[in-house]
Parts: sequence; structure tokens; C-alpha cells
Amino acid sequence: MSTVIRPATRADVPQILDFIRGLALYEREPDAVTATEADLERDGFGPNPFYFCLIAEYEGVPAGFAFYFFNYSTWLGRPGLYLEDLFVLPEFRGLGIGKALLQRVAAIAVEKRCPRLQWEVLDWNTPAIEFYKAMGAEFLDEWRNVRVTDTALLQLAGMETAQ
Amino acid sequence: MSTVIRPATRADVPQILDFIRGLALYEREPDAVTATEADLERDGFGPNPFYFCLIAEYEGVPAGFAFYFFNYSTWLGRPGLYLEDLFVLPEFRGLGIGKALLQRVAAIAVEKRCPRLQWEVLDWNTPAIEFYKAMGAEFLDEWRNVRVTDTALLQLAGMETAQ
Repeated sequence: MSTVIRPATRADVPQILDFIRGLALYEREPDAVTATEADLERDGFGPNPFYFCLIAEYEGVPAGFAFYFFNYSTWLGRPGLYLEDLFVLPEFRGLGIGKALLQRVAAIAVEKRCPRLQWEVLDWNTPAIEFYKAMGAEFLDEWRNVRVTDTALLQLAGMETAQ
Repeated sequence: MSTVIRPATRADVPQILDFIRGLALYEREPDAVTATEADLERDGFGPNPFYFCLIAEYEGVPAGFAFYFFNYSTWLGRPGLYLEDLFVLPEFRGLGIGKALLQRVAAIAVEKRCPRLQWEVLDWNTPAIEFYKAMGAEFLDEWRNVRVTDTALLQLAGMETAQ
């Protein structure tokens, strides 16, 4: 098989950032990425990493990545595996690389005894949604994602300063 | 002020499990909690914890909790703070304890330089939704949460065995 999936190393950080930018472009947010190589190196390759990453190579060329970390189920009393990003470069699509990455992530979840593998999909991404349904995924549509950032976060924290 | 918020210790594990069960009851899933005290102790109070917890005490009595961990923003290149559970016992509601817990969580996010504080809310929980809107929260309704568990997870991992 010409696809090889391996854990990312520190030397892959520039490639990881390229994949992140490629995915942001696909998600119609090309200017949203402010992460730097230094950020990704500090947070993913220290003694206590905040994230983990797999690289897919097709005939020796980096073709895609999976970026994940652990969340926690209070109901089950176990960490779960949360897949933040899964991306294959346009020129490598249709070769089963995305599915191979997802399968490897699922295998890691099982190895780590995570009862759940979770991720998010944009509601207009119909091909992905159909693909996930076919593999037996559930959609947790009763839940809404809420986020506080910037001024609202500082205000909530009681740290807003008069400007 | 009669409300004190403090980090949970190992001795709080039975109380944390009581809060988790209380929240599951509120979410109309009273039988969903299979977590044990041993699970919560192992995962929250070892050298490399999967989660963190705050306890709110009202006049010295445990009244509520906040349960959180760190996710990661690939766009911003920083960990974010993910609030998994926030719960106040029914007999202590209306005293500002939930808000005090949320404010403390926001302050921790700011201290840890997390650009985002994120959580989920059930779509029928209108009072909570209005409360979050009033504090400047965004709702990421373009994203659907997807989850794979049990047989579907084993199958995806290529580990399903014939039964």
C-alpha cells in the first residue's frame, strides 16, 4: 500500500502548519490561522503535550494529517478522543487517505480505552456527513456549541479594563 | 460573601460523582452515569490529569461544581478551556453560585492564556441560552457534533470480531 500513516515529530511542524492553513481555506476561513510554528512546537512536542498529530504520506510525500487530543466523559469516567482536524490535500483525494487516517485515529481511541471518538462537521459538508452516517456515527444535534472570547471573556473573568 | 470557590482535591471525588449524577438527572439521563470514584480519582488526581474541577461551597456546604479540561485551537495555536460540566444543586440556585463558578473558570482561561472558553448547552435550555447570550457568547451553530462509539468504533478501528 502506498499510504503510510505515522505519528508526527517535531520536524513535521512546518508541514502541520501548512495542513492547518489548507484546512482553513477549505473551511472558507483562509485568514483565520494565526498559529505559528513556535506555538505548535511548544504545545505539541514538550513533556506534557496539549495535542497529538498523525501524518499520512502517499508514496513518501506528505498528503494529509489528523490532529487530536483527549477530552473527558464525566458520565463514563474515561477520557475520550477528540479529533480536531482531519485533512487531505486536494491533489491526494479519492485515494482513501482520509479514511485511513480516521481508521488509525479510531484504533488509537480503542488502544487508549476511550469509549468515544468525537469530532465536528460543518452542516453544509453533505458528502462528509453521509460518509460519517454510513459508518454508524451519531449526530448530537440537541447540543449547541457556545464560545466566549476576547472582550466577553475578559469581562466574564472580571478582568476587563476601562479603555 | 458566603460562596467560596476552590480547586477540588482527591477527597472531593465522592462529592464530584454526586454532582455528575445530579447533572445527569437534570439532563434527563439519570441512568447514563457509569463512572466510579476510582475512575475519577485515577483520571483527575494523578501526575498528568485529564481534567480539573472546582467546588463551590455555600456557607461551608458543597453547592456546585465546574469540571473542565483543555482543548486546542489549531487556528490560534493555543490551548482553549473546555467547560464540560457546570452544575449547582437545586436547593442552592438563585444565589449566583453558577455565575461565580463560570467567572472563576473564565479567570483561569485568561490566566492560562486560553483565547477561548467553550462549552455546550442543550437546545431546550432557554434560560441558560439567554444568560449566555447576555454575556456576549457566540453560538457555533454551523457545526454539528459527531460521535462514534461501541461497535461502530471497533469496526472503524478494524478491530471488530465476529460474534
